[in-house]
Amino acid sequence: MATINRQLVLRQRPKELIAPGDLELIQTPVPDLKDGQALARVKYLSMDPTMRVWMAVDTYLPMVGIGEVMRAVGFAEIAESRTPEFKKGDKVVGLTGLQEYTVIDPSEKARAFQKMPGIPFLSDSAFLGVLGITGLTAFFGMEIAAPKKGDTLVVSAAAGATGSIAGQIGKINGCRVVGIVGSDEKCQWITEELGFDAAVNYKHADWKEKLAAATPQGIDINFENVGGEVMQAVLNRMNLFGRVVLCGLISGYTKGDPGMASFGNVLVKRLRVQGFIVIDFASRFMETATKLGQWKMFGKLKDRETIVDGLEKAPEAINMLFTGGNIGKTLVKV
Amino acid sequence: MATINRQLVLRQRPKELIAPGDLELIQTPVPDLKDGQALARVKYLSMDPTMRVWMAVDTYLPMVGIGEVMRAVGFAEIAESRTPEFKKGDKVVGLTGLQEYTVIDPSEKARAFQKMPGIPFLSDSAFLGVLGITGLTAFFGMEIAAPKKGDTLVVSAAAGATGSIAGQIGKINGCRVVGIVGSDEKCQWITEELGFDAAVNYKHADWKEKLAAATPQGIDINFENVGGEVMQAVLNRMNLFGRVVLCGLISGYTKGDPGMASFGNVLVKRLRVQGFIVIDFASRFMETATKLGQWKMFGKLKDRETIVDGLEKAPEAINMLFTGGNIGKTLVKV
Repeated sequence: MATINRQLVLRQRPKELIAPGDLELIQTPVPDLKDGQALARVKYLSMDPTMRVWMAVDTYLPMVGIGEVMRAVGFAEIAESRTPEFKKGDKVVGLTGLQEYTVIDPSEKARAFQKMPGIPFLSDSAFLGVLGITGLTAFFGMEIAAPKKGDTLVVSAAAGATGSIAGQIGKINGCRVVGIVGSDEKCQWITEELGFDAAVNYKHADWKEKLAAATPQGIDINFENVGGEVMQAVLNRMNLFGRVVLCGLISGYTKGDPGMASFGNVLVKRLRVQGFIVIDFASRFMETATKLGQWKMFGKLKDRETIVDGLEKAPEAINMLFTGGNIGKTLVKV
Repeated sequence: MATINRQLVLRQRPKELIAPGDLELIQTPVPDLKDGQALARVKYLSMDPTMRVWMAVDTYLPMVGIGEVMRAVGFAEIAESRTPEFKKGDKVVGLTGLQEYTVIDPSEKARAFQKMPGIPFLSDSAFLGVLGITGLTAFFGMEIAAPKKGDTLVVSAAAGATGSIAGQIGKINGCRVVGIVGSDEKCQWITEELGFDAAVNYKHADWKEKLAAATPQGIDINFENVGGEVMQAVLNRMNLFGRVVLCGLISGYTKGDPGMASFGNVLVKRLRVQGFIVIDFASRFMETATKLGQWKMFGKLKDRETIVDGLEKAPEAINMLFTGGNIGKTLVKV
């Protein structure tokens, strides 16, 4: 049994991307268990854009305190248990933090640990991706979008963990689905592998013309992950009574809120813009993950992972979410 | 019978406020009627911020063409009729344009002429204000807002024709209602006469602190007419799951779209932002005007008019909507 726990603690708040010195890798003793607690060994950590927000500002959760272990969702296995709620070998998902070991106290609800079922042919990491926080985010966002057959759906950050699932749920609902991404490789993946109808690389100078060509009937639904200039171009092509599901604004997470130009579109086109955070739907996670799992099993949802090896690589893995280095779900294997 | 029609035609598109030369007053012959037509004498013209938009850009209606009579909603009386649909003396509301006479062809639906009932003790001008386009706008906007008893509602441009009614509808629905206005006189009017719970003059340096003090429980509903910095301050105080009804963005009509800073609020607070245009509710105008009329009759809705005398004053009357010179509904008496 290991006695040393490696942890990434927040030392200072990042200015733009995470820089050396913002997170420090430290070693602490694995704590002794008290009655009613369990010790979990973290296997995978979910890399999510919202982590960059947690490092710097109070939002839907308070920001992480200086000196605290950085907050993160992780997949872990119970290594030792002194509570009847978990037994050794149980698999759990919750707010493990960026560390190798964590003590779980079932009475502590805020970290939201849930036991995961064993499912044949399903990798552990899927509980953080397609069946996990990002798949659930895509599902509830698309529920808010209320897609109708024949609607044109545009997804930004479409090769990311959430966008790639949101677009496929659009296809399941009979939409024409167009993805906006940051590389030709991503374009190819979402059209050839995931079945998107078209993809636009916003790093090409003529991308707005390409977006127009890909959305000849205008845009009915915008599943928005990026904000800023990308969102502005989409808003300019929205149809009357369109719906904008605001899932993320990653263009602003490392640079400050870009605001929203072309906001007048919301008025003259009578758009509905709805922000949401997946934790509001926590009571429906289990039933929904089951549905996502069925879709995955029947080949209706495909997913891909970018796995970074080693806890010490987590800072650069988070940065990849903003620099576009990842495809699909980004995970750290601990 | 007059033979000369005075008209304001659009000569050039305004840059900021309407300047001399943008609209020209011309005289043309009153046209002869054909079978199936009626001639209407315009009595009152409704001054609406959206007119400034119509002068410059295509939005929910195409912009007015250079050389065309400026588009406007007016109240008129039938002076002569060669159609069974109207008889002499009938009162109508529709897109008369900025002119003294207009020929109405009942087959021409786009100008949306409707016959007004005669109602004792009700002035003709009320059909353009509290029972007309602005009262209807307030009503449908508040319907979208779905107010609940105890909600805090903040209305911007709260002493304007639409804002003043929207706030009173908030009171009818049991909300705490706070208005944002541009003068102390307007503060006094909306609190002392209209029953708003509080008013904030955004021209005072400490107005954001005043807004905070007036909304101790945060803000559940924003009935937004202004946009820009005013809206930003309101968004910063919105509660989780709040609703923003986007009725107008007048801070941008004379200066270009101010965009929206603090847009991240929509995401982290899970706001619903809904744009709307009153013409989408045209099929419900009559029943709703009846309801507004009842509220007015029973003293639940109070209104006030700023009446400018003479067609030639219409350009400055429109400008008043942006410089804050008006209180309540602004009308031109023709």
